[in-house]
Amino acid sequence: MYQLTALYNHPADAEAFDKHYEEVHAPLAQKVPGLKRFTISHPAPDAEGNKPAFHLVAVLEFEDEAAFGAGMSGPEGAAAVADLENFAGAGVTMLTGSSKQV
Amino acid sequence: MYQLTALYNHPADAEAFDKHYEEVHAPLAQKVPGLKRFTISHPAPDAEGNKPAFHLVAVLEFEDEAAFGAGMSGPEGAAAVADLENFAGAGVTMLTGSSKQV
Repeated sequence: MYQLTALYNHPADAEAFDKHYEEVHAPLAQKVPGLKRFTISHPAPDAEGNKPAFHLVAVLEFEDEAAFGAGMSGPEGAAAVADLENFAGAGVTMLTGSSKQV
Repeated sequence: MYQLTALYNHPADAEAFDKHYEEVHAPLAQKVPGLKRFTISHPAPDAEGNKPAFHLVAVLEFEDEAAFGAGMSGPEGAAAVADLENFAGAGVTMLTGSSKQV
């Protein structure tokens, strides 16, 4: 498998971020050909009440690196990437690499 | 669903880290009751050759927060957490929160 992990920094306006992510960005990402599984998680404060390191974690899984590359380099992938500037101004860390279920 | 995302910093000795993770830590984590899905991913350098922000991403999924809490507070969860000091000295960012497949 091949995995894209997107770690979004805390936005200035969390409500606006979440609304855009749900209504615009996730639907765009879902259109990327070859996407096999897509989860989003909202980290909660830790046991001591500390703010989590990131606001949102998105995990997108593909069959392999070729499928990921083909999907992301097409128009759907470009549209999803282009949308980042509409809501992710606080920054996002993208991690891409091979993955496996253990 | 409920998700634990573990983001491991780059270790001093990546080979020793990976060997410990595969042979000791992953098997300990797999024993945590209630664990439904467990993936690990090794981020690759980006298109410009920059080192990724983290060395390894582990995603552990549970049915819900109660299942996560029960699993992690038992002896298997304690054993997995206790093992972190044996290989994760470079640091790890843990994110826990509700998740969903989209």
